[in-house]
Amino acid sequence: MEFDKTSKNTVKRGAKKATYNKKEIYAILDSSEICTIAFIINGLAYSQPINFGRKNNKLYIHGSLQNRMTSALLKQEEVSLSVFHLDSMKLSKSAFHHSVNYRSVVVIGKVKELKSEKDKLEGLETIINHFVPNRWEYCRKPNKKELQATRVIEISIESAVAKIANAGVTDNKEDEQLDFWAGEIPIKTVCELPFGKNKIEQSKEIPKHILDFYNRNKNGF
Amino acid sequence: MEFDKTSKNTVKRGAKKATYNKKEIYAILDSSEICTIAFIINGLAYSQPINFGRKNNKLYIHGSLQNRMTSALLKQEEVSLSVFHLDSMKLSKSAFHHSVNYRSVVVIGKVKELKSEKDKLEGLETIINHFVPNRWEYCRKPNKKELQATRVIEISIESAVAKIANAGVTDNKEDEQLDFWAGEIPIKTVCELPFGKNKIEQSKEIPKHILDFYNRNKNGF
Repeated sequence: MEFDKTSKNTVKRGAKKATYNKKEIYAILDSSEICTIAFIINGLAYSQPINFGRKNNKLYIHGSLQNRMTSALLKQEEVSLSVFHLDSMKLSKSAFHHSVNYRSVVVIGKVKELKSEKDKLEGLETIINHFVPNRWEYCRKPNKKELQATRVIEISIESAVAKIANAGVTDNKEDEQLDFWAGEIPIKTVCELPFGKNKIEQSKEIPKHILDFYNRNKNGF
Repeated sequence: MEFDKTSKNTVKRGAKKATYNKKEIYAILDSSEICTIAFIINGLAYSQPINFGRKNNKLYIHGSLQNRMTSALLKQEEVSLSVFHLDSMKLSKSAFHHSVNYRSVVVIGKVKELKSEKDKLEGLETIINHFVPNRWEYCRKPNKKELQATRVIEISIESAVAKIANAGVTDNKEDEQLDFWAGEIPIKTVCELPFGKNKIEQSKEIPKHILDFYNRNKNGF
Protein backbone atom coordinates (compact mmCIF):
# COMPACT_ATOMS: atom_id res chain seq x y z
CA MET A 1 0.00 0.00 0.00
CA GLU A 2 1.30 3.43 -0.92
CA PHE A 3 0.39 7.00 -0.05
CA ASP A 4 -0.90 8.99 -3.03
CA LYS A 5 1.61 11.39 -4.54
CA THR A 6 0.31 14.94 -4.19
CA SER A 7 1.89 18.37 -4.62
CA LYS A 8 2.61 18.32 -0.88
CA ASN A 9 4.55 15.07 -0.55
CA THR A 10 6.09 14.46 -3.98
CA VAL A 11 9.88 14.57 -3.80
CA LYS A 12 11.54 16.41 -6.68
CA ARG A 13 15.21 16.56 -5.61
CA GLY A 14 16.69 13.12 -4.99
CA ALA A 15 13.51 11.41 -6.17
CA LYS A 16 15.29 8.04 -6.41
CA LYS A 17 15.66 8.01 -2.62
CA ALA A 18 11.92 8.55 -2.09
CA THR A 19 9.37 5.91 -1.15
CA TYR A 20 5.64 6.28 -0.67
CA ASN A 21 5.28 2.75 0.70
CA LYS A 22 3.22 2.76 3.91
CA LYS A 23 5.09 -0.13 5.53
CA GLU A 24 8.47 1.55 5.05
CA ILE A 25 7.15 4.92 6.22
CA TYR A 26 5.52 3.42 9.33
CA ALA A 27 8.74 1.51 10.16
CA ILE A 28 10.79 4.73 10.16
CA LEU A 29 8.15 6.52 12.25
CA ASP A 30 8.05 3.62 14.73
CA SER A 31 11.84 3.63 15.20
CA SER A 32 11.73 7.37 16.05
CA GLU A 33 11.23 8.58 19.62
CA ILE A 34 10.96 12.21 18.55
CA CYS A 35 9.27 13.97 15.65
CA THR A 36 9.66 17.61 14.69
CA ILE A 37 6.45 19.60 14.29
CA ALA A 38 6.35 22.67 12.05
CA PHE A 39 3.96 25.45 13.01
CA ILE A 40 3.40 29.16 12.39
CA ILE A 41 3.27 31.98 14.95
CA ASN A 42 2.88 35.59 13.75
CA GLY A 43 3.87 34.58 10.23
CA LEU A 44 7.13 32.87 11.21
CA ALA A 45 7.52 29.07 10.87
CA TYR A 46 9.05 27.27 13.86
CA SER A 47 10.08 23.65 14.31
CA GLN A 48 9.76 21.85 17.63
CA PRO A 49 10.84 18.33 18.62
CA ILE A 50 8.27 16.32 20.58
CA ASN A 51 7.40 12.75 21.59
CA PHE A 52 4.62 11.14 19.62
CA GLY A 53 2.79 7.88 19.06
CA ARG A 54 1.43 6.06 16.01
CA LYS A 55 -1.62 3.79 15.72
CA ASN A 56 -2.49 2.65 12.21
CA ASN A 57 -2.64 5.80 10.05
CA LYS A 58 -2.90 8.25 12.96
CA LEU A 59 -0.28 10.02 15.04
CA TYR A 60 -0.77 11.48 18.51
CA ILE A 61 1.02 14.27 20.36
CA HIS A 62 0.24 15.93 23.67
CA GLY A 63 1.04 19.04 25.65
CA SER A 64 -0.26 21.27 28.38
CA LEU A 65 -3.32 23.43 27.70
CA GLN A 66 -1.13 26.55 27.46
CA ASN A 67 1.36 24.96 25.05
CA ARG A 68 2.24 27.47 22.33
CA MET A 69 2.82 24.83 19.67
CA THR A 70 -0.38 22.81 20.14
CA SER A 71 -2.33 26.08 20.33
CA ALA A 72 -0.84 27.12 16.98
CA LEU A 73 -1.64 23.71 15.44
CA LEU A 74 -5.29 23.94 16.43
CA LYS A 75 -5.58 27.16 14.43
CA GLN A 76 -4.31 25.31 11.36
CA GLU A 77 -6.28 22.62 9.54
CA GLU A 78 -3.18 20.74 8.57
CA VAL A 79 0.21 20.05 10.03
CA SER A 80 3.48 18.83 8.60
CA LEU A 81 5.98 16.94 10.74
CA SER A 82 9.22 15.09 10.12
CA VAL A 83 11.46 12.45 11.64
CA PHE A 84 15.13 11.91 10.82
CA HIS A 85 17.82 9.32 11.57
CA LEU A 86 21.42 10.15 10.69
CA ASP A 87 23.10 6.88 9.65
CA SER A 88 26.46 7.87 8.21
CA MET A 89 28.68 10.77 7.22
CA LYS A 90 30.14 10.49 3.73
CA LEU A 91 33.48 12.15 3.05
CA SER A 92 34.38 12.38 -0.60
CA LYS A 93 37.54 13.68 -2.24
CA SER A 94 35.73 16.82 -3.39
CA ALA A 95 33.99 19.19 -0.97
CA PHE A 96 31.03 19.11 -3.39
CA HIS A 97 30.18 15.42 -2.88
CA HIS A 98 30.26 15.34 0.92
CA SER A 99 26.90 14.13 2.15
CA VAL A 100 25.09 11.88 4.63
CA ASN A 101 23.12 8.67 4.67
CA TYR A 102 19.84 8.90 6.51
CA ARG A 103 16.26 7.75 6.89
CA SER A 104 13.63 10.48 7.01
CA VAL A 105 9.86 10.84 6.80
CA VAL A 106 7.65 13.85 6.16
CA VAL A 107 3.98 13.55 7.11
CA ILE A 108 1.15 15.92 6.26
CA GLY A 109 -1.97 15.35 8.29
CA LYS A 110 -5.28 16.77 9.54
CA VAL A 111 -5.24 18.11 13.10
CA LYS A 112 -8.00 17.29 15.60
CA GLU A 113 -8.12 17.89 19.34
CA LEU A 114 -9.41 14.89 21.29
CA LYS A 115 -12.01 15.98 23.82
CA SER A 116 -13.56 12.95 25.53
CA GLU A 117 -11.74 11.22 28.40
CA LYS A 118 -11.87 7.94 26.49
CA ASP A 119 -10.28 9.39 23.33
CA LYS A 120 -7.62 11.30 25.31
CA LEU A 121 -6.68 8.16 27.25
CA GLU A 122 -6.37 6.16 24.04
CA GLY A 123 -4.17 8.86 22.52
CA LEU A 124 -1.92 8.96 25.60
CA GLU A 125 -1.76 5.15 25.67
CA THR A 126 -0.52 5.23 22.07
CA ILE A 127 2.14 7.83 22.95
CA ILE A 128 3.39 5.91 26.03
CA ASN A 129 3.46 2.59 24.15
CA HIS A 130 5.34 4.24 21.27
CA PHE A 131 7.86 5.60 23.82
CA VAL A 132 8.46 2.09 25.20
CA PRO A 133 6.28 -0.78 23.92
CA ASN A 134 3.89 -2.16 26.60
CA ARG A 135 4.81 0.60 29.06
CA TRP A 136 1.15 1.63 29.52
CA GLU A 137 0.46 -1.65 31.32
CA TYR A 138 3.26 -0.96 33.80
CA CYS A 139 2.55 2.58 34.98
CA ARG A 140 -0.23 4.47 36.75
CA LYS A 141 -2.79 5.71 34.23
CA PRO A 142 -3.62 9.45 34.14
CA ASN A 143 -6.25 10.57 36.65
CA LYS A 144 -9.08 13.05 35.98
CA LYS A 145 -7.00 16.07 37.01
CA GLU A 146 -4.02 15.08 34.86
CA LEU A 147 -6.29 14.38 31.89
CA GLN A 148 -7.94 17.79 32.24
CA ALA A 149 -4.53 19.49 32.25
CA THR A 150 -3.41 17.66 29.09
CA ARG A 151 -4.24 18.48 25.50
CA VAL A 152 -4.15 15.47 23.19
CA ILE A 153 -4.01 16.00 19.44
CA GLU A 154 -4.72 13.41 16.77
CA ILE A 155 -3.05 13.81 13.38
CA SER A 156 -4.67 11.76 10.60
CA ILE A 157 -1.98 11.13 7.99
CA GLU A 158 -3.15 12.39 4.60
CA SER A 159 0.09 12.09 2.72
CA ALA A 160 3.60 11.06 3.58
CA VAL A 161 6.93 10.25 2.01
CA ALA A 162 10.14 8.66 3.24
CA LYS A 163 13.62 9.30 1.92
CA ILE A 164 16.25 6.66 2.46
CA ALA A 165 19.85 7.46 1.52
CA ASN A 166 22.14 4.46 1.94
CA ALA A 167 24.59 4.63 -0.96
CA GLY A 168 28.37 4.69 -0.73
CA VAL A 169 30.67 7.68 -1.14
CA THR A 170 30.78 9.04 -4.70
CA ASP A 171 33.42 11.08 -6.47
CA ASN A 172 33.87 12.44 -9.96
CA LYS A 173 36.03 10.12 -12.05
CA GLU A 174 38.70 12.80 -12.50
CA ASP A 175 38.97 13.20 -8.70
CA GLU A 176 39.62 9.52 -7.94
CA GLN A 177 43.40 9.93 -8.19
CA LEU A 178 43.57 12.86 -5.76
CA ASP A 179 45.57 12.15 -2.64
CA PHE A 180 42.72 12.88 -0.21
CA TRP A 181 41.20 10.20 2.01
CA ALA A 182 37.59 9.37 1.15
CA GLY A 183 35.35 7.20 3.25
CA GLU A 184 32.49 6.95 5.67
CA ILE A 185 31.91 7.57 9.38
CA PRO A 186 28.96 5.45 10.56
CA ILE A 187 26.61 7.17 13.02
CA LYS A 188 24.24 5.43 15.39
CA THR A 189 21.76 6.45 18.04
CA VAL A 190 21.76 3.76 20.71
CA CYS A 191 20.33 3.19 24.16
CA GLU A 192 22.46 2.12 27.09
CA LEU A 193 21.66 -0.05 30.10
CA PRO A 194 18.56 1.23 31.93
CA PHE A 195 18.94 2.07 35.63
CA GLY A 196 16.47 2.56 38.49
CA LYS A 197 15.80 6.12 39.63
CA ASN A 198 16.84 5.50 43.26
CA LYS A 199 18.18 2.74 45.52
CA ILE A 200 14.76 1.15 45.97
CA GLU A 201 14.22 0.94 42.20
CA GLN A 202 17.83 -0.20 41.64
CA SER A 203 17.25 -3.13 44.00
CA LYS A 204 14.39 -4.38 41.79
CA GLU A 205 14.86 -6.49 38.69
CA ILE A 206 14.58 -4.41 35.51
CA PRO A 207 11.22 -5.43 34.00
CA LYS A 208 11.00 -7.40 30.77
CA HIS A 209 9.38 -4.60 28.69
CA ILE A 210 12.33 -2.33 29.56
CA LEU A 211 14.95 -4.99 28.80
CA ASP A 212 13.18 -5.84 25.53
CA PHE A 213 13.39 -2.16 24.56
CA TYR A 214 17.06 -2.04 25.52
CA ASN A 215 17.92 -5.17 23.53
CA ARG A 216 16.04 -3.93 20.46
CA ASN A 217 17.77 -0.54 20.41
CA LYS A 218 21.20 -1.01 22.02
CA ASN A 219 22.79 -1.33 18.58
CA GLY A 220 20.82 1.50 16.99
CA PHE A 221 17.32 2.83 16.53
CA MET B 1 27.37 37.13 26.86
CA GLU B 2 23.68 36.44 26.46
CA PHE B 3 21.15 36.79 23.65
CA ASP B 4 18.44 39.35 24.42
CA LYS B 5 15.11 37.90 25.46
CA THR B 6 12.48 38.86 22.91
CA SER B 7 8.93 37.69 22.22
CA LYS B 8 10.41 35.22 19.71
CA ASN B 9 12.92 33.37 21.88
CA THR B 10 11.63 33.71 25.45
CA VAL B 11 10.71 30.31 26.87
CA LYS B 12 7.49 30.28 28.87
CA ARG B 13 6.94 26.55 29.56
CA GLY B 14 9.83 24.96 31.43
CA ALA B 15 11.59 28.33 31.78
CA LYS B 16 14.00 26.90 34.36
CA LYS B 17 15.55 24.72 31.66
CA ALA B 18 16.19 27.72 29.38
CA THR B 19 19.49 29.50 28.86
CA TYR B 20 20.26 32.52 26.70
CA ASN B 21 24.02 32.17 27.23
CA LYS B 22 25.88 32.41 23.92
CA LYS B 23 28.64 29.99 24.92
CA GLU B 24 26.17 27.26 25.90
CA ILE B 25 24.05 27.84 22.78
CA TYR B 26 27.08 27.74 20.47
CA ALA B 27 28.32 24.54 22.15
CA ILE B 28 25.03 22.73 21.45
CA LEU B 29 24.99 24.02 17.86
CA ASP B 30 28.60 22.90 17.35
CA SER B 31 27.90 19.36 18.60
CA SER B 32 25.02 19.03 16.09
CA GLU B 33 25.62 17.72 12.57
CA ILE B 34 22.06 18.47 11.49
CA CYS B 35 19.68 21.35 12.11
CA THR B 36 16.01 21.47 11.23
CA ILE B 37 14.86 24.45 9.18
CA ALA B 38 11.25 25.62 9.34
CA PHE B 39 9.80 27.23 6.23
CA ILE B 40 6.43 28.00 4.66
CA ILE B 41 5.09 26.87 1.26
CA ASN B 42 1.54 27.75 0.25
CA GLY B 43 0.67 28.63 3.83
CA LEU B 44 1.81 25.31 5.33
CA ALA B 45 4.87 25.16 7.61
CA TYR B 46 7.36 22.37 6.88
CA SER B 47 10.48 21.26 8.74
CA GLN B 48 13.55 19.92 6.95
CA PRO B 49 16.78 18.52 8.38
CA ILE B 50 19.98 19.81 6.78
CA ASN B 51 23.73 20.10 7.39
CA PHE B 52 24.94 23.49 8.49
CA GLY B 53 27.98 25.36 9.73
CA ARG B 54 28.60 28.05 12.34
CA LYS B 55 31.17 30.86 12.37
CA ASN B 56 30.86 33.35 15.23
CA ASN B 57 27.24 34.51 15.26
CA LYS B 58 26.42 33.32 11.74
CA LEU B 59 25.13 30.00 10.41
CA TYR B 60 25.45 28.73 6.85
CA ILE B 61 23.38 26.26 4.85
CA HIS B 62 23.54 25.31 1.20
CA GLY B 63 21.48 23.64 -1.48
CA SER B 64 21.01 23.43 -5.20
CA LEU B 65 19.57 26.42 -7.03
CA GLN B 66 16.23 24.62 -7.46
CA ASN B 67 15.99 23.62 -3.79
CA ARG B 68 12.43 24.17 -2.56
CA MET B 69 13.46 24.98 0.99
CA THR B 70 16.17 27.54 0.27
CA SER B 71 13.86 29.15 -2.33
CA ALA B 72 11.16 29.49 0.34
CA LEU B 73 13.67 30.95 2.84
CA LEU B 74 14.76 33.64 0.41
CA LYS B 75 11.16 34.87 0.23
CA GLN B 76 11.17 35.28 4.02
CA GLU B 77 13.20 37.88 5.88
CA GLU B 78 13.68 35.65 8.85
CA VAL B 79 14.11 31.98 9.52
CA SER B 80 13.78 29.83 12.61
CA LEU B 81 15.76 26.61 12.98
CA SER B 82 16.34 24.10 15.74
CA VAL B 83 18.78 21.40 16.83
CA PHE B 84 18.03 18.60 19.29
CA HIS B 85 19.98 15.90 21.14
CA LEU B 86 18.02 13.19 22.95
CA ASP B 87 20.03 12.23 26.06
CA SER B 88 17.77 10.01 28.12
CA MET B 89 14.27 8.54 28.40
CA LYS B 90 12.71 8.98 31.82
CA LEU B 91 10.16 6.39 32.94
CA SER B 92 8.19 7.39 36.00
CA LYS B 93 5.60 5.44 37.96
CA SER B 94 2.79 7.57 36.53
CA ALA B 95 2.19 7.90 32.78
CA PHE B 96 1.92 11.65 33.40
CA HIS B 97 5.55 12.16 34.46
CA HIS B 98 7.22 10.24 31.63
CA SER B 99 9.62 12.57 29.85
CA VAL B 100 13.06 12.94 28.28
CA ASN B 101 16.35 14.65 28.99
CA TYR B 102 17.69 16.61 26.06
CA ARG B 103 19.72 19.55 24.79
CA SER B 104 18.00 21.78 22.24
CA VAL B 105 18.47 25.16 20.62
CA VAL B 106 16.10 27.39 18.69
CA VAL B 107 17.64 30.14 16.54
CA ILE B 108 15.89 33.01 14.81
CA GLY B 109 17.99 34.75 12.21
CA LYS B 110 18.06 37.03 9.17
CA VAL B 111 18.41 35.26 5.81
CA LYS B 112 20.85 36.44 3.13
CA GLU B 113 21.95 34.72 -0.06
CA LEU B 114 25.71 34.89 -0.63
CA LYS B 115 26.46 35.92 -4.20
CA SER B 116 30.20 36.43 -4.66
CA GLU B 117 32.51 33.46 -5.22
CA LYS B 118 34.58 34.51 -2.21
CA ASP B 119 31.59 34.66 0.15
CA LYS B 120 30.14 31.39 -1.15
CA LEU B 121 33.49 29.62 -0.69
CA GLU B 122 33.79 30.92 2.86
CA GLY B 123 30.26 29.73 3.63
CA LEU B 124 30.97 26.27 2.21
CA GLU B 125 34.26 26.09 4.10
CA THR B 126 32.37 26.78 7.32
CA ILE B 127 29.84 24.02 6.51
CA ILE B 128 32.54 21.44 5.65
CA ASN B 129 34.62 22.31 8.73
CA HIS B 130 31.51 22.07 10.91
CA PHE B 131 30.80 18.63 9.39
CA VAL B 132 34.31 17.43 10.31
CA PRO B 133 36.79 19.97 11.76
CA ASN B 134 39.70 20.75 9.38
CA ARG B 135 38.13 18.74 6.55
CA TRP B 136 38.31 21.71 4.12
CA GLU B 137 42.08 21.43 4.08
CA TYR B 138 41.89 17.77 3.04
CA CYS B 139 39.47 17.80 0.11
CA ARG B 140 39.24 19.36 -3.34
CA LYS B 141 37.67 22.84 -3.13
CA PRO B 142 34.58 23.59 -5.24
CA ASN B 143 35.30 24.64 -8.83
CA LYS B 144 33.50 27.42 -10.75
CA LYS B 145 30.84 25.09 -12.12
CA GLU B 146 30.09 23.55 -8.71
CA LEU B 147 29.95 26.98 -7.10
CA GLN B 148 27.52 28.24 -9.72
CA ALA B 149 25.23 25.25 -9.11
CA THR B 150 25.21 25.83 -5.34
CA ARG B 151 23.16 28.30 -3.36
CA VAL B 152 24.77 29.36 -0.10
CA ILE B 153 22.68 31.08 2.56
CA GLU B 154 23.96 33.01 5.55
CA ILE B 155 21.77 33.22 8.64
CA SER B 156 22.74 35.99 11.07
CA ILE B 157 21.55 34.92 14.50
CA GLU B 158 19.28 37.60 15.96
CA SER B 159 17.97 35.68 18.92
CA ALA B 160 18.39 32.21 20.28
CA VAL B 161 17.64 30.07 23.27
CA ALA B 162 18.80 26.67 24.50
CA LYS B 163 16.85 24.28 26.67
CA ILE B 164 18.78 21.73 28.69
CA ALA B 165 16.82 19.05 30.55
CA ASN B 166 19.08 16.86 32.69
CA ALA B 167 17.11 16.14 35.87
CA GLY B 168 16.27 12.72 37.28
CA VAL B 169 12.94 10.90 37.12
CA THR B 170 10.22 12.55 39.21
CA ASP B 171 7.04 11.09 40.68
CA ASN B 172 4.26 12.40 42.88
CA LYS B 173 4.88 11.55 46.52
CA GLU B 174 1.71 9.43 46.70
CA ASP B 175 2.93 7.34 43.71
CA GLU B 176 6.31 6.40 45.20
CA GLN B 177 4.95 3.23 46.82
CA LEU B 178 3.38 1.88 43.62
CA ASP B 179 4.86 -1.38 42.44
CA PHE B 180 5.94 -0.08 39.01
CA TRP B 181 9.60 0.15 37.99
CA ALA B 182 10.81 3.74 37.52
CA GLY B 183 14.13 4.67 36.01
CA GLU B 184 16.05 5.98 33.07
CA ILE B 185 17.24 4.68 29.71
CA PRO B 186 20.29 6.68 28.57
CA ILE B 187 20.40 7.53 24.86
CA LYS B 188 23.50 8.44 22.89
CA THR B 189 24.31 9.31 19.32
CA VAL B 190 27.80 8.01 18.60
CA CYS B 191 30.11 7.58 15.64
CA GLU B 192 31.77 4.28 14.84
CA LEU B 193 35.14 3.52 13.28
CA PRO B 194 35.56 5.33 9.93
CA PHE B 195 36.32 3.18 6.87
CA GLY B 196 37.68 3.95 3.40
CA LYS B 197 35.24 3.97 0.49
CA ASN B 198 37.08 1.28 -1.52
CA LYS B 199 40.12 -0.99 -1.34
CA ILE B 200 42.50 1.78 -2.35
CA GLU B 201 41.22 4.09 0.40
CA GLN B 202 41.13 1.23 2.91
CA SER B 203 44.81 0.58 2.30
CA LYS B 204 45.64 4.15 3.38
CA GLU B 205 46.04 5.27 6.96
CA ILE B 206 42.94 7.07 8.26
CA PRO B 207 43.99 10.73 8.48
CA LYS B 208 44.37 12.51 11.81
CA HIS B 209 41.44 14.94 11.32
CA ILE B 210 39.12 11.93 10.81
CA LEU B 211 40.50 10.02 13.81
CA ASP B 212 40.25 13.16 15.95
CA PHE B 213 36.59 13.45 14.98
CA TYR B 214 36.01 9.78 15.77
CA ASN B 215 37.70 10.01 19.16
CA ARG B 216 35.76 13.14 20.10
CA ASN B 217 32.37 11.64 19.22
CA LYS B 218 32.66 7.86 19.68
CA ASN B 219 31.10 8.17 23.14
CA GLY B 220 28.41 10.63 22.15
CA PHE B 221 27.87 13.91 20.34
